[in-house]
Amino acid sequence: MERFVYRNPTELVFGRGSVDLLSEYLPRLGRKVLFVYGKGSIRKIGLYDRVLVAARTAGVELVEFPGIEPNPRVSTVRRAREEARRAGVEGILAVGGGSVIDAAKLIAVSHSYPGDPWEIVREPLRVTSALPLGVVLTHAATGSEMNANSVITNEETDEKLGWAHPLAYPLFSILDPHITRSAPRDQTVYGVVDMMAHVLEQYFHDARNTPIQDAWQVSLLKEILAAGRKVVENLDDLDARETLLLAGTLALNGTLSLGLRGDWGVHAIEHALSAVYDIPHGAGLSVVYPAWMRYVAPRKPERFRRLFLELFGTEDLEAGIRALEKAWRELGAPVRLWQLGIADEARFPYLAQKAVAKEGATTGRFAVLTAEDVEAIYRLAAMPLE
Amino acid sequence: MERFVYRNPTELVFGRGSVDLLSEYLPRLGRKVLFVYGKGSIRKIGLYDRVLVAARTAGVELVEFPGIEPNPRVSTVRRAREEARRAGVEGILAVGGGSVIDAAKLIAVSHSYPGDPWEIVREPLRVTSALPLGVVLTHAATGSEMNANSVITNEETDEKLGWAHPLAYPLFSILDPHITRSAPRDQTVYGVVDMMAHVLEQYFHDARNTPIQDAWQVSLLKEILAAGRKVVENLDDLDARETLLLAGTLALNGTLSLGLRGDWGVHAIEHALSAVYDIPHGAGLSVVYPAWMRYVAPRKPERFRRLFLELFGTEDLEAGIRALEKAWRELGAPVRLWQLGIADEARFPYLAQKAVAKEGATTGRFAVLTAEDVEAIYRLAAMPLE
Repeated sequence: MERFVYRNPTELVFGRGSVDLLSEYLPRLGRKVLFVYGKGSIRKIGLYDRVLVAARTAGVELVEFPGIEPNPRVSTVRRAREEARRAGVEGILAVGGGSVIDAAKLIAVSHSYPGDPWEIVREPLRVTSALPLGVVLTHAATGSEMNANSVITNEETDEKLGWAHPLAYPLFSILDPHITRSAPRDQTVYGVVDMMAHVLEQYFHDARNTPIQDAWQVSLLKEILAAGRKVVENLDDLDARETLLLAGTLALNGTLSLGLRGDWGVHAIEHALSAVYDIPHGAGLSVVYPAWMRYVAPRKPERFRRLFLELFGTEDLEAGIRALEKAWRELGAPVRLWQLGIADEARFPYLAQKAVAKEGATTGRFAVLTAEDVEAIYRLAAMPLE
Repeated sequence: MERFVYRNPTELVFGRGSVDLLSEYLPRLGRKVLFVYGKGSIRKIGLYDRVLVAARTAGVELVEFPGIEPNPRVSTVRRAREEARRAGVEGILAVGGGSVIDAAKLIAVSHSYPGDPWEIVREPLRVTSALPLGVVLTHAATGSEMNANSVITNEETDEKLGWAHPLAYPLFSILDPHITRSAPRDQTVYGVVDMMAHVLEQYFHDARNTPIQDAWQVSLLKEILAAGRKVVENLDDLDARETLLLAGTLALNGTLSLGLRGDWGVHAIEHALSAVYDIPHGAGLSVVYPAWMRYVAPRKPERFRRLFLELFGTEDLEAGIRALEKAWRELGAPVRLWQLGIADEARFPYLAQKAVAKEGATTGRFAVLTAEDVEAIYRLAAMPLE
């Protein structure tokens, strides 16, 4: 293990019916709170009304800021920050999935920052204070509800970058499996892929002596896949929804990377894609991961063999990759770029430059990849399916 | 899963050489700090001197309170609290194992409490404030370094009771495997048994739909046993020490009981023993657990079969219990009361009453046991070994 410091102060409020507790938690955010949400799906499931009722019960005034888009944009954060400042809110309530939470984190930490929010994305150490942030999660996927990470897109520069700061942990996050049951099929599947990808990014590491972390990573992957298979059979399967909801949080709350540093190259390669094409992050991941594996596994096979043996009963690299593709295809996720309508191979060099831009000239850690490597991975992701 | 709220604010500082960071962390406890430790083993390994140097570097004044005993006593806590009040300290530094930390927690939360500290042990909700508590852990076992639990003995009443309060979480805990390497063989083995017992107490639950928790519990048990076997081969095995150090923390920092409530009857049955006989907690656990299993497994076999299959490749109840006994005996732990010099069967009814006293008339949750049940378990723990 490598030396580490770990502290996760988020209060997790989990379980069937837990959204009823919102009125008890809301006052922790202040008397006037910016209520941030997405494109209105929370209205369809009645959650919007429940939030208003909770605020009335709690005596908390809400200032609404709807319209956070998937792959949330820094321009939206700018507008939200203006609204928060104008209204004089004391805290932020994010009701939605990872995109809404990620945007809310940047609103919270940039509230009293004098410069542009994008400066924080590029240099998170600029953060010195944050408004308190509460979350009601509607979708199991990103883990943003119990970590300090956020991913923001700059549509002017075609950049999609992750950033993190200790002040970006939510104060509380309410996770109710009843609510995630309303997530539609494709979004549910992309959530499953996303959380599996988070575990995989941590599984591919070079740290020594990590037997507990390795075992927990592999068993979490197994349980996510098992619950994912159940939920695509029956989107109303509350047990499977509940398992996925906890899994998404545990996949990225820091537990699985105690004492190790994961790869995260696949995320960079995917972010370059979804910054330009505005595809769902999970769909991009299920396309990029097999291609990344085909490129990396022959060069560094040991951890791949172990993973595939545990998950699919094979140590053969190509057989393992195909088994993962098969599992994701059976869930309904794409595994090639052309399934997402991306066929313009001439743009691969541009995308590859984007993927390696933040780190300098490479991305990834377990597999350190240059722009040329990333281009080769995009080409592998464009292959025909046999 | 059952509905739950989870928040663990302790900052974990983990890894080889991490004790060097003490001078950076000490000022968080204040300018004048009560330095609590045990019987002086920290002097032998040079840790005492390192603490003094760190305090000098940090400009923090230490007020020493040595002599915390294993199975720490409320009378000792009373004296420490007097000393803390007299000296006007602003925080507590605990350097030691679970006993030192548990005592320090009660000192911290009772500092401004007007009544006797034992009242808090009996009714933890009396706590309204606490001094900040920092920890340097010397021994992998109890998990007290990253939870809000404490166990205190009242020698006047032969009681040994656990209590917990959210204000009892350490502010920070420094875990350096180099330091745990000095733990002697028997203490090391009892630590291994203790952390396995913590996982088992959580494994034996009645909650539905807990596939992730179950998988993580079982794999943690496997990894603790594997590292335990290595460390008794070579007490200097730094990798095994490091694994056990993280395992002890993860075994009882709340992760494994998200959404479920464990049994904890074996702990109550053992606490009655070690309150009266002053035996090491881990040695008591390795004696009580097989007896508890022999009593409970035939009545409620399903989770036992699954456990034994995963750990020892058998679904036979008696074969599984014997395999666990064999594993613990090979580590060097006792599995019968007479191995601890306890042969007075006439005291079993008295002990059994102690075991069920706190909860009312029963102990345990997965297996609800009356005093008569507990007596029968003590008798099973007194059986000859074939």
